[in-house]
Parts: sequence; C-alpha cells; structure tokens
Amino acid sequence: MALRVQKYGGTSVANIERINCVADRVQKAFDEKDQVVVVLSAMSGVTDSLIALAKQAAERPDRRELDVLLATGEQTTAALLAIILKSRGYKAKSFLGFQAGIKTDKTSGKARILDINCKNIQTSLDEGYICVVAGFQGADEDGAITTLGRGGSDTSAVAIASSLKADVCEIFTDVDGVYTTDPRICSSARKIKKISYEEMLEMAILGAKVLQIRSVEFAKKYNVPVHVRSSFNEEEGTMVVNESADMESVIVSGITCDMNEARITLKRVPDQPGISAKIFSPLAKAEISVDMIIQNTRTGGDTDLTFTVTKDDFDRALEITEKVAKEVGAEEVITAEEIAKVSVIGLGMKSHSGVAATMFEALASENINIRMISTSEIRISCVILAKYAELAVRTLHSAFGLDQIK
Amino acid sequence: MALRVQKYGGTSVANIERINCVADRVQKAFDEKDQVVVVLSAMSGVTDSLIALAKQAAERPDRRELDVLLATGEQTTAALLAIILKSRGYKAKSFLGFQAGIKTDKTSGKARILDINCKNIQTSLDEGYICVVAGFQGADEDGAITTLGRGGSDTSAVAIASSLKADVCEIFTDVDGVYTTDPRICSSARKIKKISYEEMLEMAILGAKVLQIRSVEFAKKYNVPVHVRSSFNEEEGTMVVNESADMESVIVSGITCDMNEARITLKRVPDQPGISAKIFSPLAKAEISVDMIIQNTRTGGDTDLTFTVTKDDFDRALEITEKVAKEVGAEEVITAEEIAKVSVIGLGMKSHSGVAATMFEALASENINIRMISTSEIRISCVILAKYAELAVRTLHSAFGLDQIK
Repeated sequence: MALRVQKYGGTSVANIERINCVADRVQKAFDEKDQVVVVLSAMSGVTDSLIALAKQAAERPDRRELDVLLATGEQTTAALLAIILKSRGYKAKSFLGFQAGIKTDKTSGKARILDINCKNIQTSLDEGYICVVAGFQGADEDGAITTLGRGGSDTSAVAIASSLKADVCEIFTDVDGVYTTDPRICSSARKIKKISYEEMLEMAILGAKVLQIRSVEFAKKYNVPVHVRSSFNEEEGTMVVNESADMESVIVSGITCDMNEARITLKRVPDQPGISAKIFSPLAKAEISVDMIIQNTRTGGDTDLTFTVTKDDFDRALEITEKVAKEVGAEEVITAEEIAKVSVIGLGMKSHSGVAATMFEALASENINIRMISTSEIRISCVILAKYAELAVRTLHSAFGLDQIK
Repeated sequence: MALRVQKYGGTSVANIERINCVADRVQKAFDEKDQVVVVLSAMSGVTDSLIALAKQAAERPDRRELDVLLATGEQTTAALLAIILKSRGYKAKSFLGFQAGIKTDKTSGKARILDINCKNIQTSLDEGYICVVAGFQGADEDGAITTLGRGGSDTSAVAIASSLKADVCEIFTDVDGVYTTDPRICSSARKIKKISYEEMLEMAILGAKVLQIRSVEFAKKYNVPVHVRSSFNEEEGTMVVNESADMESVIVSGITCDMNEARITLKRVPDQPGISAKIFSPLAKAEISVDMIIQNTRTGGDTDLTFTVTKDDFDRALEITEKVAKEVGAEEVITAEEIAKVSVIGLGMKSHSGVAATMFEALASENINIRMISTSEIRISCVILAKYAELAVRTLHSAFGLDQIK
C-alpha cells in the first residue's frame, strides 16, 4: 500500500465529463489499495473569469477579498469530485485549504506556506476516505483565506505530500512530462525520464510551465518525489527527484526559451560609484524584478547599462528608467521588446567544461548574434533577437545531442 | 450611533451594478455614523445553477459536499461587496460563515444554528470596519461547511443581529414589506406597518415568501426587531416585533393563500384503534410532513381519512398511502391536486370571537365550498378548490376590512 498525492490541473477538471475521468483514475489507484489524496485546481478559465468579475467591481480589487473570491474556484471542483466519488459508492470528503491545515503568511495573492498540519487528512485516510483537497488556497493565522499564486495547486500538492510523507506526488497535467525542450518548437524534443530538482527549478524559472517554481523549491527542500504525467493517458511521465550520481553524466538536460522579457538600455551613463543603485533602487521600490544586467564600460569614462524585465513590467520600468536617466545624465534610453532568452540547463555543467563554448559556437554557426549572457552553476542563458528564437532552440538541442533517435 | 444588520437577497446582488447599489446603501448608513454588518445571499439564480451542476455530477449529490459547493455562491457576493467598499475608501472585510462564528449541527442542507459567537465581527466593528458576511452558511463542530436551507441568509442575519444585540435587523428584498395579502391577487392589499412575530410566523409557514420561517422563529426567540423593506427604494417597510397591546385591536392582520398542497383521501377505512398510526407512521419514516388531517366517522363502522402534503412530496406520499390502504383494507384512495389553502391570521382572534363564522359566511356568499378546516390560536385555514383561490382571497380581504382606502 502506497500513499499517493495526485494533483490535477485546470484542463483536467474543465467540466463534469473531465472530472469523471479524474474520478476514474482516482478510483483505480484506490482500488489498487493505495491511499489517495487528490488536490485540484479550478476549472480552466474560471480563475480568469473571477478576476475579470472582480475588475468589474473595482479597477484594482483588494487583494484580501480577491483571494476570498478566487478560492471559490477550487472549492467548486473539490466538492464536485467528492460528489462524484461518493455517488460511485466510495468514501470521499472534500477539504478546503484551511481544513487541510495549510497555514500561510498574510501575503494575499501569493501567500507562502508557513506550516502544514495534515492530521485531519491523515485521520480521514486512516478511516478509508479518499481525501479531495481544494488546491491553491490556505488560511493565515487569523483564519483569513489566502491563495498561493498562479499554479499554486502544485505547491499545495507537494506541501501535502511532504506533510503526509507520501510515496509520490503525481502532477497530472495536459502534457505527458518534462521535455528536453518545447516540442512545439523542436519536433525532436524528448521526454526526460528523470530530472533533478535543481534542473527542474531552472527550467521552471525559465518559463517551462509544467510546474510552479515554488512547488519545485518545496519538493527540493523536503525531498518529495514528484511525478509529472499526463491526465489523458497512462504513460509514465517525468520523475523529479534528488540529484543522483548518474545524472551528471548528462551534460545538458534541457533547452528553454523565454519570450516574456524586454530589454532596456541606458546609453552613456556617467561611470560613477553608486550609479547602479540610483538606477535600480526605484525599480525595486516599484516591485519590478530585473532579470539580467550587463554593464559595458566605454573608454571615455562613461558606460552603457542594459537590463531585462518581464514584458508585464516593461511600461512601468521604462517610465521609471526614463526619469532616472535624466537625473543621472544618461544620453538616452533604448528599448528592445522583440528579444528571446535561450538557455541550456544541466547538472553536468558542474563537472564539465566547454559548455559555454559549444553554445556560442552553435549560435554563431547560424549567424545568431548574442546580445546578453548570464550564467548560473547549472545554466547558461543568452539573449538574442526574438526572430531567431526557434532556430536557436533547434540548433542547441542538436548541438548538445538531445535529439531523439527517430 | 446604532448597530444595524442589513441583509440583501439574491435579486439585490444579482450583478455588479446591483451590488454597487447595495454598496451605496451600506455606505449611507455608515456615513450616518451607524455600525453596519451586511449579510448577503448569492446572486439570484446562482444557487439553482450550482444545484444543476451538482446534479450533472450525480443524480443525488451528497449533501455534505453539495453544501461545500453551494457555499461558494455567498462567498462570491461577500467578496465582491467588500472589494467595492474598499475601492471606495471604506474599511471593509468579508466573513464566511465559519469566520463569523456561526456554529451549526451536522444536518447538511438545512443545518440549524447551535451557537453563534460574533467576537470577530464585534472586534472588526470596533476597529471601524464594515463587516460583510456570507449568508446561508455556517460550520459544524468539525469545521465542515454547512448551509441553512433555502432563504437561510435571513436566519444568518437575524442570528448575527441577536448575537451582536443589534438595534435592528433590516431585511432588504424585492418587495417593500409584508402585505395584508398578495398584491398580485388582490389590488387593494395594504402594506402592514407593524406585525407580531407570531403572525409573521403563521404567514411565513403559509407561503408568504418574505422571510424564512426559521428566521422568524429566531427573531421571536431572541426578540430581534426585524425591518422588512425594499432594496429598490427608501420607503419604510414592515416592522416585525414583539406582540404589543395595540396589536390585538386588529382582529385579522392578513390573508394568505397556499397553492402548494395536494390532498389524499382514504375511503372507508375500518374504524379501529391504531389505524391512524398505521397510515401516518410510514409517511413520517419517509420524512414526508403531513399538514392537515381530517377524519369523518361514518355510520357503518368505517371512516374516511383525508390529509394534505406538499406537492413536492405528493408522488411519494401517494405511493406509500396506496400500499398502506391495501394493508388496512381501505376501499380506495382518492386524490385532489388542484386545491388551495386560504387562511386568515390575526393576534386579535385570541380575544375576539366570530372570526370563523365571518370567514365561512364570506366564502359561502360566493358559493365557495370548504373541503377541510384547520385552526390555530391565531389562524383559521380552509381548503377549497384551487380555481376559487383568488376570489376567496379578495372576498376575505374585504370581509375583514383590510382593503385600503383609495
């Protein structure tokens, strides 16, 4: 007997028919004598509709109350699945976030889990119940409803799996696993059988939308084995697990492409101490996160400063930057929205050299100019013009030997 | 400074525009330096849609889980009103049933309030908040979500008003008060300025849909002054209060007409001790409530037994009765679905005689045959054929001097 936490995303619970399919799968696991906790998202589109409704009510809806509103989405699907399972003769019970013991901080809209106590769920499991949990939500110390941010149901599931010491946390989604790159861009992309938390984290940060970033951090911290798989078929997906010795033999595990950034350049900024703080402090105050930063010192005592922000933040960032540019005496502000960030990710980089060289050569071979570069221990990212993005991904995928054998 | 509990029904919160109107009214009360607790229903139609959704999921949805689903309706409106009030610069906070301290028994779908502790609301009021409570819902001792039955938001409001010792509980609805009879049937119906809890209770039981029966019981028990008024205008409505000396001077306060019952007659039942128990016990077991019962003993040692049930229960009641009829040796079972129960209600009946005679004479004057009669201390009801219902109401309204002076 294993204890399985299964999480189903919005497309998997999009309507009663789909929820019935979820019930089939849950039922199968339960009939195989496993204990099952199911964590559900809202029906696809519902969260967006609720946000739209709130925006009809107020231009900038209060975050605390928006959370109360949004939490109804998962409450609905959890109740419906429990209704279906009970009508099939199974013992089933729904749990809202606060009933599942998910305690969060007070950051409405993107609350962080502070503590999780699944004793209610454990008791019900021991009594033979299938436990159906509304994902995405928790409650703060005052009992106010909070939500965990977009994709937060992944985090709910991983947190519950860690608290219950589950054997596996299965993330059922509309793709059948984590791929070496986006199969829509590169037809030779392969499904990865096993990937480390660190690599998965880099890939999630870089825009692979399979798992919420925080759910991966949580899984890594508490060592929760995560199985990403399709809710539409029975195939094995991708296991996200602790780094193991054999993983380093693969130099590069995946290629990502993030089209969601834009670039801002301040030309000819006087090269003085403290100038960077003057530029980036106002952005930080406005809660705009800056991703890559490069500074090219020129011979004449001034410097060009370039950075990237997400496209969502671009307008506000530009406004702030133009104001600051005047104050610090920069010559002008130049922008580029049509950029892409392609990255190669792999644990093997820690112990293998030459990855950067291979990457740059591959891009050069296709005459793709690199505009910015940044690196981490297990990742190298290059900003290029957006129009080359797909070519770059395919070229790198092939250069690092990731193409599947056809 | 007064403490006002305001309850708004489904049509008053049917969409964002209407919720904005509710906000206007709440804001006005608050600006007049009153403390305000708002209790909301779900948007009109939403509860029915959710029930329909649950029925897609299962023919007979589990009651516990249906409550979890239905509770989202009031959660939605409470969050939206709080969003609107906050966007207007007011301090406002939503409370779900469990957050408002409404503890109920475990009877899903029609839970009874066991205890109410509004200390959270009181604290927020003292801090200058407008408190917006999701009506219709509470939580049982295990923290499971429960609902109070159709119209339960009235009961939520009265219960909260009693717990907070509010100066008034205002029930805002789509009619502007309690009328001497249904104005759609009788154009000379008058709005009643003041009515006793007892009379209101009889009227609610008899189908006046202005207030949920249990809310009136609650108001009576805890002596909560209830003001039933329109959410569409500023007029004074009807005050529902404790019986006062002047009330008895009015002999009849209102006339009601209930078309929702059907009649079943067992012909020639052997007149033996215990026969009634044999007939009514199976109905009670099936949770069918029987309203009126009459028994006519005939000369030949047998008897006719007639009773009424609601139309909802009619099919099941008939099935059970036909089975019992065979067992006890009744001659046949006759039914009548096209009946109406007209009633006259008034505290004054306690001290005035002749009310029944006036009623029977008035009906006789129009050649309306009375099929069944039942009485309480402050009510007389007659079952007649449905086709005479409107004529009977108008005749009685006039006979008891209730017509308004035009």
